[in-house]
Amino acid sequence: MRRVTPHAAVVLLSGGQDSTTCLAWALERYQRIECVTFDYGQRHHVELAAAARIAAAAGVTQTVIPCDSFSALGGNSLTGTTAVETAVDLETGLPNTFVPGRNLVFLTLAAAFAWQRGITDIVTGVCQTDYSGYPDCRADTMVALEAALRAGIDFPINLHTPLMYLTKAETVIMLRDLGHLDLLRQSHTCYNGQIPPCGTCPACVLRAKGFAEAGIADPLGALPLG
Amino acid sequence: MRRVTPHAAVVLLSGGQDSTTCLAWALERYQRIECVTFDYGQRHHVELAAAARIAAAAGVTQTVIPCDSFSALGGNSLTGTTAVETAVDLETGLPNTFVPGRNLVFLTLAAAFAWQRGITDIVTGVCQTDYSGYPDCRADTMVALEAALRAGIDFPINLHTPLMYLTKAETVIMLRDLGHLDLLRQSHTCYNGQIPPCGTCPACVLRAKGFAEAGIADPLGALPLG
Repeated sequence: MRRVTPHAAVVLLSGGQDSTTCLAWALERYQRIECVTFDYGQRHHVELAAAARIAAAAGVTQTVIPCDSFSALGGNSLTGTTAVETAVDLETGLPNTFVPGRNLVFLTLAAAFAWQRGITDIVTGVCQTDYSGYPDCRADTMVALEAALRAGIDFPINLHTPLMYLTKAETVIMLRDLGHLDLLRQSHTCYNGQIPPCGTCPACVLRAKGFAEAGIADPLGALPLG
Repeated sequence: MRRVTPHAAVVLLSGGQDSTTCLAWALERYQRIECVTFDYGQRHHVELAAAARIAAAAGVTQTVIPCDSFSALGGNSLTGTTAVETAVDLETGLPNTFVPGRNLVFLTLAAAFAWQRGITDIVTGVCQTDYSGYPDCRADTMVALEAALRAGIDFPINLHTPLMYLTKAETVIMLRDLGHLDLLRQSHTCYNGQIPPCGTCPACVLRAKGFAEAGIADPLGALPLG
């Protein structure tokens, strides 16, 4: 088996609030952190730029891994060029932004990246509290995927999901308590890719609600409650 | 949950002998078959062309799904431009053609593709008999991955691995008994991408050995035993 690098973690950093909080969580626990960001044809490259700024602000390395498979599979408004739709598929009950298996692929690629460096620990911001419609964000999926990764790359991968059971407000409080609220100055949330954020898309509304409930001001600037 | 399309399967078709045999296996069992081929930056595009010819000869559809992640992750002589090396990594004992997690990613993308069409059954030519050095070809990995896919895309995916416990000779006999040996006229094996095959690379030697042990002539032409 591959030699293990101790006290090290790979953090999936998308450039948003949740993955930024995961990075802060990891900064408290590991001596060496490598961030990975997936370039999967997302609508707004401001997200990738935000991830690079956050990693730089935290003083850790960041690697962008391309993945062109999902835009080829299509059927996903987040990778398209048309307006964002918020419709729900009547058959599946899932929002039409859903890409089946996306987190499974990203975590598997992160595990391959970690294997190359002898790193066993992977940190991801998946959360079943706010995103129960996405089956690849659920705790049972993460447990099953961890088993598949351990078998499939023959390496004792640990998938850490520090936000799994938290509300958005609790995530804000966690980041504040970790002393890294300032990292959010570099973050990105808006589905419409606007800076400052539009304040009206579902992501902006969810973020504003979390800060309001936590009683903490968003370092990115005031976001109106939708 | 998504509606299920009955009597249908997705076959992972690489253009080689094993996946061609899986297609023949599926032709006997399903009314509707959709092949997927992954373009992951493999050294020789003759492999992709072979897959297209085999699907056409079998009268089934074939979709090429790109995946640029592995060549970006690097460290894999099959996607590079230098000469094929057959060295074994001293630390891991794995051949240096090993890409950690490649089958996990391909099967997850195949599951996403299948989900979009309501297809539950996926057929792949992984085999632990000849490839025990690749942990993502083993039966325990497939069982774990099936569980992760079922949870992660919320769909009753069945991973079929008809070659899992067969020797190369048994695979040849299976294909002959299924009546589809002719499909191998379109197939590809050679690591050096030569047509006719070089006969000396590990893939050519393994293929020739299987046909010799089965006592059956390779439709692709005589391959010298290495």
